[in-house]
Amino acid sequence: MMKDNVAAAKAALAHLDIEEREAAIKTASRDFFWYSPVLKTRLDHVLADFVVRPRNEAEVIEILKVCYAHDVPVTTRGAGTGNYGQAMPLAGGCVMHLRHMDKVREIAPGRVICEPGILLKDLDAQTKEASGQELRMFSSTWATATIGGFIAGGSGGVGSVHWGSLRDLGNIIRLRVVTMEEEPRVLEFRGEELARVSHAYGTNGIITELELPLAPAYDWTGLFVAFDDFGDAMGFADDLANEDGILLKIASVYEAPTAHAYFQRVKPHVDEGTHLVGLMVAPQSMDGFLTFLGRRPKAKLIYRSDDNDWPRDPGPIFEYGWNHTTLRALKVDPSITYLQVRYAFPEHRELVEKMRTEFSPEVLQHLEAIRMNGKIAFAGLSMVKFTTEERLDEIIRLHEEAGALIFNPHRYTLEEGGRQHTDDTQLSFKREADPKGLLNPGKMISWDDPDWSYDRMYAYPHLQAAE
Amino acid sequence: MMKDNVAAAKAALAHLDIEEREAAIKTASRDFFWYSPVLKTRLDHVLADFVVRPRNEAEVIEILKVCYAHDVPVTTRGAGTGNYGQAMPLAGGCVMHLRHMDKVREIAPGRVICEPGILLKDLDAQTKEASGQELRMFSSTWATATIGGFIAGGSGGVGSVHWGSLRDLGNIIRLRVVTMEEEPRVLEFRGEELARVSHAYGTNGIITELELPLAPAYDWTGLFVAFDDFGDAMGFADDLANEDGILLKIASVYEAPTAHAYFQRVKPHVDEGTHLVGLMVAPQSMDGFLTFLGRRPKAKLIYRSDDNDWPRDPGPIFEYGWNHTTLRALKVDPSITYLQVRYAFPEHRELVEKMRTEFSPEVLQHLEAIRMNGKIAFAGLSMVKFTTEERLDEIIRLHEEAGALIFNPHRYTLEEGGRQHTDDTQLSFKREADPKGLLNPGKMISWDDPDWSYDRMYAYPHLQAAE
Repeated sequence: MMKDNVAAAKAALAHLDIEEREAAIKTASRDFFWYSPVLKTRLDHVLADFVVRPRNEAEVIEILKVCYAHDVPVTTRGAGTGNYGQAMPLAGGCVMHLRHMDKVREIAPGRVICEPGILLKDLDAQTKEASGQELRMFSSTWATATIGGFIAGGSGGVGSVHWGSLRDLGNIIRLRVVTMEEEPRVLEFRGEELARVSHAYGTNGIITELELPLAPAYDWTGLFVAFDDFGDAMGFADDLANEDGILLKIASVYEAPTAHAYFQRVKPHVDEGTHLVGLMVAPQSMDGFLTFLGRRPKAKLIYRSDDNDWPRDPGPIFEYGWNHTTLRALKVDPSITYLQVRYAFPEHRELVEKMRTEFSPEVLQHLEAIRMNGKIAFAGLSMVKFTTEERLDEIIRLHEEAGALIFNPHRYTLEEGGRQHTDDTQLSFKREADPKGLLNPGKMISWDDPDWSYDRMYAYPHLQAAE
Repeated sequence: MMKDNVAAAKAALAHLDIEEREAAIKTASRDFFWYSPVLKTRLDHVLADFVVRPRNEAEVIEILKVCYAHDVPVTTRGAGTGNYGQAMPLAGGCVMHLRHMDKVREIAPGRVICEPGILLKDLDAQTKEASGQELRMFSSTWATATIGGFIAGGSGGVGSVHWGSLRDLGNIIRLRVVTMEEEPRVLEFRGEELARVSHAYGTNGIITELELPLAPAYDWTGLFVAFDDFGDAMGFADDLANEDGILLKIASVYEAPTAHAYFQRVKPHVDEGTHLVGLMVAPQSMDGFLTFLGRRPKAKLIYRSDDNDWPRDPGPIFEYGWNHTTLRALKVDPSITYLQVRYAFPEHRELVEKMRTEFSPEVLQHLEAIRMNGKIAFAGLSMVKFTTEERLDEIIRLHEEAGALIFNPHRYTLEEGGRQHTDDTQLSFKREADPKGLLNPGKMISWDDPDWSYDRMYAYPHLQAAE
């Protein structure tokens, strides 16, 4: 039964595009939270009361104003490809789906202005067509995810090997944001102000326009390079990413038997012991790459997208990297889950080897070379054979004790998925922009419970009850 | 008096474009060797017997063939903006000037194919016009230097803060080279073979076509940032260059009083104690840059090219950097010369401070942030108040003893200007491609005197006698 206030809000918005089909409402209430058995247990029943799809900023303002008046929570989403439960309406209420807001407003050398609901692939298609440019970085869910979701819920991805992370200065230029107040305000954020709402899961304002830097678009050559030794594979990716004249879009490392066990179209070309490196290299850098390769006799080039005899096209290399690795593993073995790890320069290789020695094959290494503060290091999206929550927590603890920073993807709050402390910038902006605490409730611990000690998993008190 | 063999060669080439004016022959026999008082003393009298300007590769072949037959040395040059005497005909003979070979053959995403004699600025104008692209890196003599001269005689420059050095894999794609044999051959070099002739001063083959990677061209914003403390200036440039999301073309540091003493149009805006940082920032990175700047209260932005009230335009920022710094200093104080230093990561800042403590103001620090093996470090083009050759040698020795690598610009040989040892790749290709040793003679010690000990400055035995 819908509560009266929710029903009243829905009725007041009836002239907008409201989703009425039950299955579609269920779909719009979920994201890729099921990557985590921990979140799966806790959030599987979560369901919005209604779903509304604004066509423009004016309708966003109207929705926020009406929901504010009726005290209805609003959880905003793009495609729902996040995997921290970012886009799930923990307290029910309204899900605001931005898919109609998919316009590109301006394309210029080095930058684009667009609405949040456009798919990454559609945005890239338009910027490439108009100007030979593409996004500096995007998630491996490029084909299905939206730019707004990536900025509000992501941290980096394909392209971070060259450009660093979304949080790095210069990787977001401007965000236009609507607040959740009696009279919603429209604000423009640049510079230091961007940290208020980027990677805030829509908890303190709704992004209605983005200005982002662009990089040149190339017909990236996809490559797989095979190794018998994990250290050689990791060293190859690390050294290659340190070659300043060779332009890369991605450099991923997959510990054996990942490629053989989980990459169906790669399997015929590798064996169980193969450690794999996946790469996207700019075509003008292919000569340099092949020279680099020639210096490393242990590296075996098994696939290049521009010249191969593979009977079945493996598709884009980036769809093997970042969280697609986990997705491919999960499809074969549903007991697989994962961790997000940072192995910082200059100890990154040693630390990976240490974790591998300690945990393989319970934890399989999957590394993405990325720039952090100007140095190449690794983001780890380790695949974990899940047994119990206790063991998962122990694995996390042992990583942290060894010096590997964990961004825990088995938690649905900003703090627990991040650095386990209050983000004062985001919290203080939420006080200003969402005084009733209606935006994506349950995702910011410091709002709900400022004294939370982080000694156990946070449980949002107003989480919908499972039926 | 021209020797008979030289006269015969000249006569055989009389149907080509031959320079007959004495002043022009003298100009075409010189480069910027006079930056060095050491080279000035030794090479000032050097003069070609004749100067020929081929219009195409066929004429290059003809010139080499004729000169081979008559045993006439051939020294090839572009604009002669090098400063190691690279383009000077130490044994007289023929100077082959490539200015007519200035065609752009192909422009594609990420690459260009062109002839060697085109000016850097004209090449950039064409690639920008056709495709919104420009060279990844160029010398500060962009307005006057040729691409062939840059590749044959340079090591990096404006753009190296992002792309590393010319020697890094991927920064040259292909070189087409003509040999100096009875029947000259035309060879195409890629990958490992590029090291044979790049930065070889034309001692072992003549480059007739180049294929180079391109980067996107932006309307770079030029900036000057002033500091009271040298360490703050150096740290600012280093930290900024480590910001992965902020795209730079150059980041230079000038110890006080360089800006006040030598930068005429900057002088009214700084004082004697001002340490200056010069920058070129992509326009889409300006918001990120200003945010970075805002976090550093000691940094004072005194100039931005897109918004300033300076009565006299200082011109492009890169014309204050790299060897233009030395040039500006020399114009004010003819006793200034310079050093080329490498301060390697991670000790680069410490090492600079150590050298500064030891030598300032006799040696003034001028640093260029560049990527070396994936890490930001510094190329130093220190300005030296010259007294004696002995003192200069001592300063060099003390740098080397402290761990700062020196590329000595007071020597005219490849080895002495480099790492003081034989380059086997270049030497063995010279044996094959220039069996008579006629190409740019006197520049490769290992060809003339394989057992040279490097205990003193090399003196080419066949250097023209001063009259």
